[in-house]
Amino acid sequence: MKRKILSASARIQNVQTPIIPVIGEMIRTHPGTISLGQGVVYYDPPPGVAEYAAAAMADPVNHRYQPVEGIDALRAVLVDKLNRENKIDCADSTVVVTAGSNMGFFNAILAICDVGDEVILLTPWYFNHEMAIRIAGCQPMGVATDADFQPDIASIEAKITNKTRAIVTISPNNPTGAVYTPDILDAVNALCAERGIYHISDEAYEYFVYGDVAHHSPASRKATEDHTISLFSLSKSYSLASWRIGYMVIPDHLAESVRKIQDTNVICPPVISQYAALHALKSGYEYCRPMIKRIADVRQHLYQALEDVPGIAANHADGAFYVFLEIPGDNRIDIEIVSELVKDFGVAAIPGSAFGIESGTYLRVSYGALEPDAVKRGIDCLCDGLRSIVTR
Amino acid sequence: MKRKILSASARIQNVQTPIIPVIGEMIRTHPGTISLGQGVVYYDPPPGVAEYAAAAMADPVNHRYQPVEGIDALRAVLVDKLNRENKIDCADSTVVVTAGSNMGFFNAILAICDVGDEVILLTPWYFNHEMAIRIAGCQPMGVATDADFQPDIASIEAKITNKTRAIVTISPNNPTGAVYTPDILDAVNALCAERGIYHISDEAYEYFVYGDVAHHSPASRKATEDHTISLFSLSKSYSLASWRIGYMVIPDHLAESVRKIQDTNVICPPVISQYAALHALKSGYEYCRPMIKRIADVRQHLYQALEDVPGIAANHADGAFYVFLEIPGDNRIDIEIVSELVKDFGVAAIPGSAFGIESGTYLRVSYGALEPDAVKRGIDCLCDGLRSIVTR
Repeated sequence: MKRKILSASARIQNVQTPIIPVIGEMIRTHPGTISLGQGVVYYDPPPGVAEYAAAAMADPVNHRYQPVEGIDALRAVLVDKLNRENKIDCADSTVVVTAGSNMGFFNAILAICDVGDEVILLTPWYFNHEMAIRIAGCQPMGVATDADFQPDIASIEAKITNKTRAIVTISPNNPTGAVYTPDILDAVNALCAERGIYHISDEAYEYFVYGDVAHHSPASRKATEDHTISLFSLSKSYSLASWRIGYMVIPDHLAESVRKIQDTNVICPPVISQYAALHALKSGYEYCRPMIKRIADVRQHLYQALEDVPGIAANHADGAFYVFLEIPGDNRIDIEIVSELVKDFGVAAIPGSAFGIESGTYLRVSYGALEPDAVKRGIDCLCDGLRSIVTR
Repeated sequence: MKRKILSASARIQNVQTPIIPVIGEMIRTHPGTISLGQGVVYYDPPPGVAEYAAAAMADPVNHRYQPVEGIDALRAVLVDKLNRENKIDCADSTVVVTAGSNMGFFNAILAICDVGDEVILLTPWYFNHEMAIRIAGCQPMGVATDADFQPDIASIEAKITNKTRAIVTISPNNPTGAVYTPDILDAVNALCAERGIYHISDEAYEYFVYGDVAHHSPASRKATEDHTISLFSLSKSYSLASWRIGYMVIPDHLAESVRKIQDTNVICPPVISQYAALHALKSGYEYCRPMIKRIADVRQHLYQALEDVPGIAANHADGAFYVFLEIPGDNRIDIEIVSELVKDFGVAAIPGSAFGIESGTYLRVSYGALEPDAVKRGIDCLCDGLRSIVTR
């Protein structure tokens, strides 16, 4: 009997290849490249985090599975933090610790979406959001943001169908750095309430806001708890990226569903990492503040340097540690520009097409991942490269 | 405008509630209950594992994301282990480290199954396998094992349709403890090759075999690498359950697909846990051997004790640390029996219905999770309870 040809599922073949490892490979083959690519911070986690976490493992019970939704001690600290900092009252919500915020998003999509359902993403979108929706057998529906990368409520509303299950916002935004105004976030949330859909609010970059701009959590408003899913991460704020700890605030009516998914997927978030998170949260925002201040200085340097590059109009975004640059000129292919930047100018960025950009040529430049001196050198290389490319 | 009622997706509502937390809650409300419930081992991980892992985090790069498929050092050790112990030649396969073996299974299902596809599970099945298949929008197709809980090839073949994408085996088996014979595993594998479907071989309990019985990895045979997905875990063997480290051996043609899924789901397995795994694997099987020897003694005690319970015929399964007991009598409800065992006899087990058993009343008894003395006391309580229940 002739064998069928074995191959991956169509759903996976429709999912884009993760871009970060592709750029990572370019960098590896060109040693010395300064990476303005990956979204990580330049600083270390609070001192003693690994030692504290290791000490917690002296209790043999900690080697065993712990609660699916996270250990009680960590969840209690998170409820307190959410109350104090985000003004989110968790009385009718459930806090679930996840193995990173990507898992929180995947949990949410699986918990609320059936196959064929639609989820509205604002473009440029975060690639792992789009990928998660497709992997779940659902449809990402992109809605363009405005010239300042802010959501346009009328455009979002026009995209809602009877298959829409959620609208996703990311503020501060990856990849644009835009911080959505409280009015806009509240308007998205009110639209969700009115139409009976969920608002997934990704707040992984909540601490990364500059100048007078403040972070706003839509779930801080009254009567939002039934339809708002808020996602947070310790990967950026506390530099715990490799430890894989995030958390989600979900309506109580989704708690059992998310528990089923997480039990099936990871059983429980890694317990040693939960203790690391507990230790980091003791230092709290005060640990992050001076580190982020230095990123703010780098950001100023970046915008100043970009002003000297003719043809580049950089949006002054107020948050995260990204700038989403438009490269003028037709028929430019972003991945080729990135390749040229790596080979000829020793600097890497992420091509805009990874974020669902369909017209225009963009690069996402991450300015938080390197020691301020190194990133400034990287910015200089980038500007040299852009000058050469743009004037060609 | 009237709001729609928000609720979880139908796919999740169709997924069973995880049983372990339900039994855990029963135990918590009856302090002193001896748990023969959860599938964990009584012993600790190799000494120094937490300290070694914490020391690795002194390198700041280890706080950042590491490769999606796991760190190179760990994957190299795993390739060597697979070669030596499992006789799996990884030349045309890819080893992917996962945040636990459940994630390996979920990765596999998402990578090979489209919505509506079917996956054959042998009953009684492992509940998280069934849950993963439903969460992925696919259909678990149960095929009953024989009186010794061994697979019946003709029954499996009869269940294959043009929607079938995989046959799943677990050997040593959860929940029955059965170790499938090499002939049967090879026959399942050959059937998969012939019909162009995948064989998912879950080998989480590979070290837990007793007497003269040996573990057999179907991927050790020639020409199996294109259609065999082998899953392994460090949760049981090295008692690293809470650390969440497993690994999968997959055909090279699925590597990119699994990378996409894992990138979206967890980005990378927790890095500190990967270093813990690296340390544990240095001790290797020699660390586990004396621990498992003691479980073998407990197993003997269990079977002897059960012989004195009239009406109970326990299958002498040769592996894992489970016995799957049939309770005679009609109209018995397994969860009520478990509740009675907890309340009146101070011992807990897992009801068979969680494993997809549709006729007959069964309990899964786990005898590996407690110090041998404690588990022996638990077995005595269990036998007292069964005597009382069976003769009623």
